[in-house]
Amino acid sequence: MSAPAIVAVRDAFSRAPAPAHPIAIALLGLGQIGAAVARLVHEGHAPARLTTALVRDVTRTRPHCGPVDLTRDIERVFASRPDVIVEVLGGVEPARTFVRTALERGIPVVTANKTLIARHGEELLDVAVRTLTPFRYEASVLAGVPFLGTFAARPLAARVSKLVGIVNGTSNYVLSRATAGRVTIDEAMADAQRLGFAEPDPADDVNGIDAAHKLAVLAWHFGLGSLSPGELETRGLERLHPLDLAAAGDLGGSIKPVASIEHTSGRTSAFIGPAFVPGGHRLAGVTGVENALLLDTSSGRLFFSGPGAGPIPTAATILDDVVEASRGAAPVRRRGGSTAVIAPSTPWLLRVAGTQAGGEDIASFLGAYGIWVRRAHTRDGRTWRLTYACSRERIDAAVAALTAATACDALALRALED
Amino acid sequence: MSAPAIVAVRDAFSRAPAPAHPIAIALLGLGQIGAAVARLVHEGHAPARLTTALVRDVTRTRPHCGPVDLTRDIERVFASRPDVIVEVLGGVEPARTFVRTALERGIPVVTANKTLIARHGEELLDVAVRTLTPFRYEASVLAGVPFLGTFAARPLAARVSKLVGIVNGTSNYVLSRATAGRVTIDEAMADAQRLGFAEPDPADDVNGIDAAHKLAVLAWHFGLGSLSPGELETRGLERLHPLDLAAAGDLGGSIKPVASIEHTSGRTSAFIGPAFVPGGHRLAGVTGVENALLLDTSSGRLFFSGPGAGPIPTAATILDDVVEASRGAAPVRRRGGSTAVIAPSTPWLLRVAGTQAGGEDIASFLGAYGIWVRRAHTRDGRTWRLTYACSRERIDAAVAALTAATACDALALRALED
Repeated sequence: MSAPAIVAVRDAFSRAPAPAHPIAIALLGLGQIGAAVARLVHEGHAPARLTTALVRDVTRTRPHCGPVDLTRDIERVFASRPDVIVEVLGGVEPARTFVRTALERGIPVVTANKTLIARHGEELLDVAVRTLTPFRYEASVLAGVPFLGTFAARPLAARVSKLVGIVNGTSNYVLSRATAGRVTIDEAMADAQRLGFAEPDPADDVNGIDAAHKLAVLAWHFGLGSLSPGELETRGLERLHPLDLAAAGDLGGSIKPVASIEHTSGRTSAFIGPAFVPGGHRLAGVTGVENALLLDTSSGRLFFSGPGAGPIPTAATILDDVVEASRGAAPVRRRGGSTAVIAPSTPWLLRVAGTQAGGEDIASFLGAYGIWVRRAHTRDGRTWRLTYACSRERIDAAVAALTAATACDALALRALED
Repeated sequence: MSAPAIVAVRDAFSRAPAPAHPIAIALLGLGQIGAAVARLVHEGHAPARLTTALVRDVTRTRPHCGPVDLTRDIERVFASRPDVIVEVLGGVEPARTFVRTALERGIPVVTANKTLIARHGEELLDVAVRTLTPFRYEASVLAGVPFLGTFAARPLAARVSKLVGIVNGTSNYVLSRATAGRVTIDEAMADAQRLGFAEPDPADDVNGIDAAHKLAVLAWHFGLGSLSPGELETRGLERLHPLDLAAAGDLGGSIKPVASIEHTSGRTSAFIGPAFVPGGHRLAGVTGVENALLLDTSSGRLFFSGPGAGPIPTAATILDDVVEASRGAAPVRRRGGSTAVIAPSTPWLLRVAGTQAGGEDIASFLGAYGIWVRRAHTRDGRTWRLTYACSRERIDAAVAALTAATACDALALRALED
């Protein structure tokens, strides 16, 4: 069982060419992504063949998959001597145990599982490095854009001080649709589901948890340290009103689902949530299901964008990882260690509604908290104010006091700098 | 000073081939880029040390380079047994012979030489594949953005039908500056030279030849075939007037230095030159020295942007290639064979000046050539017309006939679709 892996390792270092035979893939999981991988392989889009698949129900018919040995027994998967194991079970267990065991036994692993990498990427990479076994997870973040593996092997380009991006295609589609159609988040989500841009249960897309896991993967991958997704400031789309989206447009920008992490002066700060993006910002043009990432590196600012997740682009990325894993490229150890993350100071977009207090009164109220207003916009009895940067503690305290004093309805969204 | 570099090596190579020593680099050429490589190495930014450099003048002082054996003898370079040779001589000969010899002898090569790759990339890669020797040229196109090597090893992502980009930072800076400052191309170029964004002799940046070589590298790298840079439709910035740039703005777009290649229905079409880019196009936001590339892949549209060439970003990319080359990743053969390239049909931005002919007369004149006007704009006695797509033959014939009939001054620039 370890023979193919050993051959692959030798390939990399003896500079021998890749194996001439199709790469034997075993799939762990045959859900939407797994089925797309199987289909691309069956249709001949990759130099690979599918031998075995671990599934819950071996009796179900699997169209478009071609001949494959379906099993519920992980040992049978290992015994089939795959060149590469593709893990698309999702979630932590049993994926973690299966991937760890495969790597311990020298079988290369490709995964698209952001939750697994966010929680146990460091542990699994340590095993891969120790056993000299290829281990790739390109499809876990920006699944349609190849870049993670690139930076893993390029130490100068990977010196990143800041990452800000749109990493959840579903919520980006929902906000774009709600903005363009002047509809509610719920209505836009119904459209997304009808068009196949959202899962039947999109809770983790809407509440930011999917983005938090992806940001944790990025932080670890780019050497900003291991952080717990649960510790990140994570806001969802729930409290957004269609008028917020329209007001953002009136203020020359738009509201986008942003994930951001920055390392400055020895401190790491991060947030996830809908944020005001000024019209001139690179992320302003990223609409629909598209994903994008802006990286501040030691050589300058890089920007990558591409299609958001979807079974076929994700499966294509997984298969490219399979090709790379089969060539035996050695995994590269990453700087580890857990990192404490704080919430950053940023500008804010503050919506205030349902109060008779005048604009000057509110401005001086905010001023008493050290919050300064840059621009204001009124529409339908509500006012939106773009502030200069301040901490979350400060804006939260001001919002709480303002709400208590005037019984208004107030919401503070983060805003990106121009 | 080399201590951090050694630590970095251990980090990056925690797997088997960890050289206990820094990577030994021999430089071919110690001009602007070579000196930047030497400086980054000397300052400890890479897990490497510089052993030997091939130069014309061994007596010249080389500040910031650290101790290095300067020689005029290529055999002395080979005899120094470098782990990797970095070729930054530029041009075809003697670079081609030296690189070929190094690869024949199994010495990994990293180059930033777009001319060499455009003309002889296929021949050199064949040698590298035959001798199983790493060969990398990431810095030859979009030197600040790592992506070429990524696609070399990822066959599904590399299925590209169209590439359109801004690949020359100098001309992009010049057009951005001329547009913003309402100055001539020459004045903007003087600014670029003063700021270090242009070489003392920027002829190949202005006339499109630099971009033609880069497009040839991209076409070959992405499997669109080997083409001769000299056969590409290549236009320079020379005939642009500041009013053209202003008129483009009035028409909701801007003029950018575009390189484009597309493969459809078995035909490859390409052009290089200043083109009208509509405001909603991804390239519209790429200003200053920035470079960018839009790729239509089988999984969707990808976009990459980053800093244009400059000695330090280019040197950082070269050193990342050195790290990858020293890890021994085998080169991947690419689909070769020479490709015939035609000039595509595109929309055009047509400037007409110095005629008393009325707008309707000109429109019906163009209509007689099958050229249909979508929008027109008049400023200072000149008129700019955005047309629907037609061939270069057709627009050239119409311009020649119009000029002959009315003694007007006319210029046709290509335009990108929205």
